[in-house]
Amino acid sequence: MTHKGISRAVIKRLPRYYRYLGELMENGIDRISSMELSERMKVTASQIRQDFNNFGGFGQQGYGYNVEYLYKEIGLILGLEHTHNVIIIGAGNVCRAIANYPDFKKRGFVFTAIFDNDPSLEGTTIGNCVVRSVDDLEDYIKENDVEIAALTLPKSAAPTVAAKMVALGVNAIWNFAPTDLNLPDDVIVENVHLAESLMRLSYRIKEKNK
Amino acid sequence: MTHKGISRAVIKRLPRYYRYLGELMENGIDRISSMELSERMKVTASQIRQDFNNFGGFGQQGYGYNVEYLYKEIGLILGLEHTHNVIIIGAGNVCRAIANYPDFKKRGFVFTAIFDNDPSLEGTTIGNCVVRSVDDLEDYIKENDVEIAALTLPKSAAPTVAAKMVALGVNAIWNFAPTDLNLPDDVIVENVHLAESLMRLSYRIKEKNK
Repeated sequence: MTHKGISRAVIKRLPRYYRYLGELMENGIDRISSMELSERMKVTASQIRQDFNNFGGFGQQGYGYNVEYLYKEIGLILGLEHTHNVIIIGAGNVCRAIANYPDFKKRGFVFTAIFDNDPSLEGTTIGNCVVRSVDDLEDYIKENDVEIAALTLPKSAAPTVAAKMVALGVNAIWNFAPTDLNLPDDVIVENVHLAESLMRLSYRIKEKNK
Repeated sequence: MTHKGISRAVIKRLPRYYRYLGELMENGIDRISSMELSERMKVTASQIRQDFNNFGGFGQQGYGYNVEYLYKEIGLILGLEHTHNVIIIGAGNVCRAIANYPDFKKRGFVFTAIFDNDPSLEGTTIGNCVVRSVDDLEDYIKENDVEIAALTLPKSAAPTVAAKMVALGVNAIWNFAPTDLNLPDDVIVENVHLAESLMRLSYRIKEKNK
């Protein structure tokens, strides 16, 4: 099943559904109605049904959805059925935060190597990875299966490194640098712009206080 | 000027405009046309004009916009004209990442205190803050001006701490815990759900490879 034409908003909600369904499973809940899921997630039940109808509806029958089935199906849509190998470039604090984050491995994202241009960091361990020299980046990518590169780099370094990743065949970038990377259209870039998140918070505070 | 009824999508784009305009200023560019801004930001010029019209248009005259004026106006809309005091709860790796992030202070977000329940971290320094005991949280909030609480806590601890923040009068939460906080409607919550960001990346990889 392809899902071309599915709106960004729906795609944005899918990981949230997945998270909730995972929690339901952890709590031993087998079935859930769209009404109950709606109450938990604070999304309308009709929104949930509409979202799920994009993917065939997931066969709600009698009393609601089969939680495990739904979890697995959404996992398949999100491409979580196989492991994703992720390298991190830039061994600073943000690298440390994501490399030690417990939830990623559970979702199938495995950090396989970390690179930095500071020789004093070489050989140190972050999470389960030994920090390597950026000089080894090219060989590493050629010899290993690398699907995603996480860039936890200063703004100034990110565009060059991103271009290098693409040249080496890594076409999915998880970008933490506070800049947009101008890469070819077929390269997938997912940005985490933390300052923008804080500014949205500030906007909402300001609007509330009016 | 109030901006009720402005769509979430526009609000989402404002910090990005702000970032680009800041970069233009740093590069000494005084004026820019919507066409040029459009090319840099990869947003259509008509989208830019439409977005700006929500706020009165910012007076594009002759050759484009006055960059500094536009930067300041958008800063005002985003509530960046005054300093925002932020406390961080949970002195782990994510705390370390945000407390040491250089861009926030530039935007007026100042981390004033960090709290943790691990006595061995008490008295250590992260960024410019000394880590304090969570036992001091209540007194600190009563005695200081705290606008935002950043929660860099495990999923299990976040809801309780969030509720405590609200009880103490902190009504804006920057939440890094991978869970939704069920708080009263007048509390502003901005989530940074990193696992969801990775799952969206995975979805896009899967769609591309079909």
